[in-house]
Amino acid sequence: MPKHRDVARANLENLYRIFTVPEAPDSTLGEIDEAISRDVAGFLQTHIVALERSLEDIEADFFNTAIPEEPTFVSEYTEFVKENLVAQSVHTAAPGFIGHMTSALPYFMLPLSRIMTALNQNLVKVETSKAFTPMERQVLAMLHRLVYRGGDTFYARWIHDSRHALGAFCSGGTIANVTALWVARNRLFAPAGDFRGIAQEGLVRSLKHLGCDGLAVLVSRRGHYSLGKAADLLGLGRDNLVLIDTDDDNRIDLKLLRAEFLRLQEENIRPLALVGIAGTTETGNVDPLAAMADLAAEFGCHFHVDAAWGGPTLFSDRHRSLLSGIERADSVTIDAHKQLYVPMGAGMVVFKDPTALSAIEHHAAYILRHGSKDLGSHTLEGSRPGKAMLVHAGLSIIGRKGYELLIDLGIARAKTFAAMIRQHPDFELTSVPELNILTYRYCPQAVQQKLVLATSLQRTHLNALLDQVNLLLQKEEREAGKTFVSRTRLRLAPYGQELTVLRVVLANPLTTDEILASVLEEQCRIVQHPEIRELMLQVDALCAEIEDGPTAPACAGAR
Amino acid sequence: MPKHRDVARANLENLYRIFTVPEAPDSTLGEIDEAISRDVAGFLQTHIVALERSLEDIEADFFNTAIPEEPTFVSEYTEFVKENLVAQSVHTAAPGFIGHMTSALPYFMLPLSRIMTALNQNLVKVETSKAFTPMERQVLAMLHRLVYRGGDTFYARWIHDSRHALGAFCSGGTIANVTALWVARNRLFAPAGDFRGIAQEGLVRSLKHLGCDGLAVLVSRRGHYSLGKAADLLGLGRDNLVLIDTDDDNRIDLKLLRAEFLRLQEENIRPLALVGIAGTTETGNVDPLAAMADLAAEFGCHFHVDAAWGGPTLFSDRHRSLLSGIERADSVTIDAHKQLYVPMGAGMVVFKDPTALSAIEHHAAYILRHGSKDLGSHTLEGSRPGKAMLVHAGLSIIGRKGYELLIDLGIARAKTFAAMIRQHPDFELTSVPELNILTYRYCPQAVQQKLVLATSLQRTHLNALLDQVNLLLQKEEREAGKTFVSRTRLRLAPYGQELTVLRVVLANPLTTDEILASVLEEQCRIVQHPEIRELMLQVDALCAEIEDGPTAPACAGAR
Repeated sequence: MPKHRDVARANLENLYRIFTVPEAPDSTLGEIDEAISRDVAGFLQTHIVALERSLEDIEADFFNTAIPEEPTFVSEYTEFVKENLVAQSVHTAAPGFIGHMTSALPYFMLPLSRIMTALNQNLVKVETSKAFTPMERQVLAMLHRLVYRGGDTFYARWIHDSRHALGAFCSGGTIANVTALWVARNRLFAPAGDFRGIAQEGLVRSLKHLGCDGLAVLVSRRGHYSLGKAADLLGLGRDNLVLIDTDDDNRIDLKLLRAEFLRLQEENIRPLALVGIAGTTETGNVDPLAAMADLAAEFGCHFHVDAAWGGPTLFSDRHRSLLSGIERADSVTIDAHKQLYVPMGAGMVVFKDPTALSAIEHHAAYILRHGSKDLGSHTLEGSRPGKAMLVHAGLSIIGRKGYELLIDLGIARAKTFAAMIRQHPDFELTSVPELNILTYRYCPQAVQQKLVLATSLQRTHLNALLDQVNLLLQKEEREAGKTFVSRTRLRLAPYGQELTVLRVVLANPLTTDEILASVLEEQCRIVQHPEIRELMLQVDALCAEIEDGPTAPACAGAR
Repeated sequence: MPKHRDVARANLENLYRIFTVPEAPDSTLGEIDEAISRDVAGFLQTHIVALERSLEDIEADFFNTAIPEEPTFVSEYTEFVKENLVAQSVHTAAPGFIGHMTSALPYFMLPLSRIMTALNQNLVKVETSKAFTPMERQVLAMLHRLVYRGGDTFYARWIHDSRHALGAFCSGGTIANVTALWVARNRLFAPAGDFRGIAQEGLVRSLKHLGCDGLAVLVSRRGHYSLGKAADLLGLGRDNLVLIDTDDDNRIDLKLLRAEFLRLQEENIRPLALVGIAGTTETGNVDPLAAMADLAAEFGCHFHVDAAWGGPTLFSDRHRSLLSGIERADSVTIDAHKQLYVPMGAGMVVFKDPTALSAIEHHAAYILRHGSKDLGSHTLEGSRPGKAMLVHAGLSIIGRKGYELLIDLGIARAKTFAAMIRQHPDFELTSVPELNILTYRYCPQAVQQKLVLATSLQRTHLNALLDQVNLLLQKEEREAGKTFVSRTRLRLAPYGQELTVLRVVLANPLTTDEILASVLEEQCRIVQHPEIRELMLQVDALCAEIEDGPTAPACAGAR
């Protein structure tokens, strides 16, 4: 019995130790920690293994589902993390990783993140965040001002108003977009007379109240998939997310948009919101926002701009005008973990009308009491970390001009890369970059020429083969682990059909022209793999049938 | 012109420096960083100012809404952070901060968080997370197993299934609860015959399809406020969140619950979900889960358990049975940033049926393709950080037995504190702790006795005064900054009216009995403040009127 008590005391002491004794600098974890502070790029370079183990192999390391009974030494666990997690993660900061929207981080983000984590504030309420609440309000106001350009008086009036918030800080763009449409829906069905509003009475009664048969959200086919989730979640149904075709430059077709507005009117379906895109996820194009603002006003609906990617273009004197009209949006989404270079998990939505978020205001007895400045009364999420601090840091340290430089650099680099692709005999540019995103595919110029002459059926066959080629190319490049582009499927105007294309996002300032050239070189090497060569021989054979008589083998043979 | 080019080049070089040159160890930020790794408790102790500046004063430091044009030196910014943000934050890790659900963190969480931040993985897709995806799947499976106790064969079958996920990792419990109810809704209105499901067709057509007039969610009055948001968001309306009264122990009243089920049946309103609570936010009580599972089965609705707080009680051999019946829930929410001691921003929801999340499955052309193991196809959120790594670390390093110790310790301490309150002449225990949360109020025993004898009107008056006393007490204690309890308003059975009570959460293992005693001592000092004394004199006067004739001054005078 006394022995049992000794064990219990020893366990308790170990437990306290976990909470009170930091890792020794010479412990494995201490050493990693130190290595990361000294040189994160070097750490990632050294510890992330380039060569891909198959996902199935990796899964074997994460297969045990029983929670360990006994505690493990931190050092032992750290070895596991180093070998099985860090080594097998993705080097998203590598300058050759240009396929997705994750880039290198400014160095100061790491120590500041540690301060944030150590403080462990909870932004849902002032009682667990104190100065972090006014700080987050300031960040939201700064972004609001970037978009809407209000004056000092306006912000002095609203920034710290206890009953309102100029926007909502979110875990990402999806929650930001959902919040925007939620606000739009609740404002459309605001309390009036006997009707107590949709928040209280629900969607069915609300539609009856306004006497309409349905509710729709309009956006171009390039809209982010989060809008589909929002339409589902909010009870509209995906049928009522009206996808409008785009013009040759991936921008919403305004004529078709107007036609859809009219169709909805005829069918007694209320347009809830029109969503403009400032930087489509796949091609980086910007919708004609000013013209869309006109249409939203004409048909009386909320105008939301999804600027999750492109918002920070507003920092650039040279390129700001691309987003002209955004200041007329009722709400705007901007992701901080994208072009504000903040670590993953930071999005925002700002509202033109400083009282808009009242439409989703909520309270509870133990927090979020009326009159408190708790930000949680105006967010979809509850408890939230102090990530706004990192946005605050970025805006303060990098400054408007620093971000401008980053934006200008990325757009310039995209144009350079587009020119390289155009000049290359083996690649076809499939979307002209407006911001810093472009798409292209492996498709030798000779095949491009044949595609123009081909019959519709021949074109379909050729493109199907090229789709397979580009899919394999992207997979093998990813698995080789040296460079990375992503892939998507886009319906491209000249072909009138959906194609598999390679997608490039140029936001990492450490990506050089040489790296871009090396991406194309590596891709040219990869297409020599037997499986792809086999496909290209079929492409050649098909090309040979196009027009009269056989032509010189244009593609695979030419390399 | 060449000068202009020099400036541009210098700017560019500074920009690269931000991304490539780490903070020097002797820089301000480097020093803070080092100080935090060496001794976070000491750092927080030294740098967080205890005495409260008013929020209005703090706001003055966060008032400028113009994004700075020019970059700032990191060192300069760090000084600002230290003086204006860190100093004025809340010491949530302090052992005397027992008012909310944020506790001290195990030390290893900090360096591991830094690794997570440096890797900057995005869990929405394998292409930006690789090993982090199987790791997150493993964490979800571990929590699933903790709740549902499936066997090895079950988990081997489902853990890494590309078409399914055993749960969703979320930014917090709110998103977890919303996800659970979203899944419940979409499963109730699953595609059938011509009906393509609610995700596609929306709520109005779905109700027609099932021929019901509405949709309701049932939960006790102690339900978390996120459920109200969910009812609003999903289109049900808050009217259809049916709040059931509780018994004297803050558990849902089963008779009233059954009566509401029958009422809904009569009104042709379909019960979408019954929500049981395992650890109410305000009082920490656990609903009778097994009996609720029976009712949910009888009336054919989804049974969700919100175990955001209490879920980890399952680690404890001694206390696990309190949650008995949870294994029959269709879905369960558990927050990792609460009793798994992970930094802010980590929640989870697990589903009994491994195919349940198919109800909200979604895809996109550039990611989340059919057949991929991307976790983003089954989450409400899009891009997400690799926080699951910290849960993985906690489960591995602390182990089941370590968490058991933490749980047992908290519950034991709550019982100790409850006894201290009961024995104290000046306080009244207002909810008996079942887990590690309790409520009480300042109400001297003599007043308690009078309250029993008082008429209904007298009781109302007395309680109104006591509400003011406790409100002021909580505010002044918070502002003094030495210790912290929160407050809420609860309708308590013996009084039949809503009262302001003090709320205590005992999850920090560093909170000792001495600290608890000092909280009561401090509160006894605070009630001597003139404003509160004045109120207590009124209480005394009212007490004197109760029953026949004057009684000895029982309260304020007695101290």
